[in-house]
Amino acid sequence: MKSFLNTSSDGKVMIDRVFKAAVAAKEDEIKSGDIVVNATLGTLFDEDQNFVAFKSVWNAFKDIEDTQKAKYASSIQGNIEYRESIYRWLFSSIDEKMKAEIIATPGGAGAISSTLKNMLDPGEIAIKPSLGWGPYKTMAAEFGIKLLDYNMFKDNYFDIESFKEVTNKVMKEQGKVLVIINDPCHNPTGYTLTSNEWDQIIEHANILSASGPFIIINDIAYIDFNMKGNDWKKHFKKFNHLAENVMAIIAFSTSKTLTAYGARAGAQIVITKNEERLNDFKNAAIYSARSIWSTVSNGAMSLFAKVESDEKIYSKYIEEKQYYVNLLKERSEIFLKESKENSLDIYPYKEGFFITIKVEDNVYKETVYNRLMENHIYTVMVDGGLRVALCSVPKRKLMGLAKKIKDCM
Amino acid sequence: MKSFLNTSSDGKVMIDRVFKAAVAAKEDEIKSGDIVVNATLGTLFDEDQNFVAFKSVWNAFKDIEDTQKAKYASSIQGNIEYRESIYRWLFSSIDEKMKAEIIATPGGAGAISSTLKNMLDPGEIAIKPSLGWGPYKTMAAEFGIKLLDYNMFKDNYFDIESFKEVTNKVMKEQGKVLVIINDPCHNPTGYTLTSNEWDQIIEHANILSASGPFIIINDIAYIDFNMKGNDWKKHFKKFNHLAENVMAIIAFSTSKTLTAYGARAGAQIVITKNEERLNDFKNAAIYSARSIWSTVSNGAMSLFAKVESDEKIYSKYIEEKQYYVNLLKERSEIFLKESKENSLDIYPYKEGFFITIKVEDNVYKETVYNRLMENHIYTVMVDGGLRVALCSVPKRKLMGLAKKIKDCM
Repeated sequence: MKSFLNTSSDGKVMIDRVFKAAVAAKEDEIKSGDIVVNATLGTLFDEDQNFVAFKSVWNAFKDIEDTQKAKYASSIQGNIEYRESIYRWLFSSIDEKMKAEIIATPGGAGAISSTLKNMLDPGEIAIKPSLGWGPYKTMAAEFGIKLLDYNMFKDNYFDIESFKEVTNKVMKEQGKVLVIINDPCHNPTGYTLTSNEWDQIIEHANILSASGPFIIINDIAYIDFNMKGNDWKKHFKKFNHLAENVMAIIAFSTSKTLTAYGARAGAQIVITKNEERLNDFKNAAIYSARSIWSTVSNGAMSLFAKVESDEKIYSKYIEEKQYYVNLLKERSEIFLKESKENSLDIYPYKEGFFITIKVEDNVYKETVYNRLMENHIYTVMVDGGLRVALCSVPKRKLMGLAKKIKDCM
Repeated sequence: MKSFLNTSSDGKVMIDRVFKAAVAAKEDEIKSGDIVVNATLGTLFDEDQNFVAFKSVWNAFKDIEDTQKAKYASSIQGNIEYRESIYRWLFSSIDEKMKAEIIATPGGAGAISSTLKNMLDPGEIAIKPSLGWGPYKTMAAEFGIKLLDYNMFKDNYFDIESFKEVTNKVMKEQGKVLVIINDPCHNPTGYTLTSNEWDQIIEHANILSASGPFIIINDIAYIDFNMKGNDWKKHFKKFNHLAENVMAIIAFSTSKTLTAYGARAGAQIVITKNEERLNDFKNAAIYSARSIWSTVSNGAMSLFAKVESDEKIYSKYIEEKQYYVNLLKERSEIFLKESKENSLDIYPYKEGFFITIKVEDNVYKETVYNRLMENHIYTVMVDGGLRVALCSVPKRKLMGLAKKIKDCM
């Protein structure tokens, strides 16, 4: 007899490592107090270990009318003001018009998930970095999509050779490439690709696309915490020079950008030369939205549009955010310096919320993870290492941390 | 060469009839003014044609802390306070413990969509009412699920014979039944099943489940606008007496309940005898959530929990909502009386947001729809008829409307 659940859903169980580690840390904090270093949480905390909700943003939310929060979004594709604000947020430093379509999604998760679902058939392969955000795997599994990794680093730089090799192989086998690039401020290593590395990626994509569609998902969840600020966004101009058979989908999220994690607003920003294909993607994405989550939060979309379009609020926001970008830099400098001093092997960090300690062997990784917990240090096990969330650990607790970690290895 | 989009997504386009009709009405309102009857909008409007956002609800939202709105939800399954509030909201009038699991979803859409995706394999059949909410079709198509209808009415009552016949047929063919029942306040007819009709449905499900799993999706989007109020919810006790191989998934939404359409909070409430299967469903639903939309809006969940658990706010809410339940009754009485007087054939309305005029022939339906628009009357074309949204048309505009419609037929 059949089960209630269908063949692909029967027995699926999610294992949430971040959540588990966070709970363990919290329990220890109650027991052991301030000695605990909780480096599990992927959201911003200030130096007093208080959760940060940008005042510029959340005061603006108060000024949005109740009716606006209550009403349905004005379209499944997302409110026009929201989409226009996203366009300017990402592209206003570019001196060309970007040929893009924007579709609102619930966070960056919705953007990546919907893209995977609509681009690949079950059984096809998506390509992701060897070090990366855990839910890429869950998402692929949800839609019966297989995964293959490109190796992330070689000699502390992006391993472009592996990227080329794996994409070549997949193009040869399935006549289509979909590859995820989480940049800038890669989760969990904090790496940001150089302009030259991006050029090589795009050049390769343009060439390989002669053999089939080449799709780049550029996950930019942490974009607004890169140290160059809006200047980094000039990078997107490169997407205006993709070959006809290359498509870039930028997965944008207001979660980190606005410290609006719980508000669930993000977007797919699709760029490709051919207008018809751009339109096909948009139609498919809208269809999926209607069928899966319907509209995106109207209040959250209004909030982003308000922060972006109100000059006063925007400049307050930029100032407030810069304080935390600077704070992240200070925190990282402490940890990087001490890592070096203590020969703690970490992946090449440049900026962003996380640093990852290199521990390639899975059994040993779990041993270290447990030893750290015995010493009241809570990290998150990720592929290839242990993630330390700079975003949530104050400087005073980062001082001496590298040595303490090294001592557990 | 392959397309960017996969085989099932290439070429899909959503047609949003409600949106189109609403836009046409708005344009006419600008041109022709108050003569326009806009009966397209499925949200509450008061007698002055202002959108209604319950004060009790949205004032409460102001008192929720910024950090709570900013933070991620405390779990993928949904905040515990939210789930407990939903349990009490639906089941507190029942003198038994309900064996239920609750999983937060973005609105009722998310609840139905996730259930369809996890219960049926692509190619399998879901059963829906012959008259019903349009997106059931979009959702099924999104996941490659086929649809079969049971006939909704016979002699102005629920057509239980058709329900039995179609479910029997599908059980025989695929060894599993999944059927959608939108009750109370059925969209688009405003029908509510009698207690006896529900008994017959459940008795049939219990018997037929000997041949395979029998899954009931009970879409209760409009539950809090039924005229019996919380008393109606005693109905759910019946779900405690399902046979081992029957599962009920209640699709709940705060959209209409709280006039929080844009806030995107709903839930799956799963009920079945076997604890292991209950748990399997929960795990699959959480996995899908993580893979598709991640968490549900933290602010929206907090809002519902606050309205439910704060006695003062709750009693204000009940009072405020009752005013609109009464108003809907008054509006419906005008239209029902005049329909009778003018021999305008409508489906059996009992309560809720919508009345539907019976027009079975599709070509003729479009003719009438267009004629009505020429006369500044805007309805929505639905299967089997034209939907009139009582929720958004003031009494003064409902007076005489039945005759005007009849004159166009």
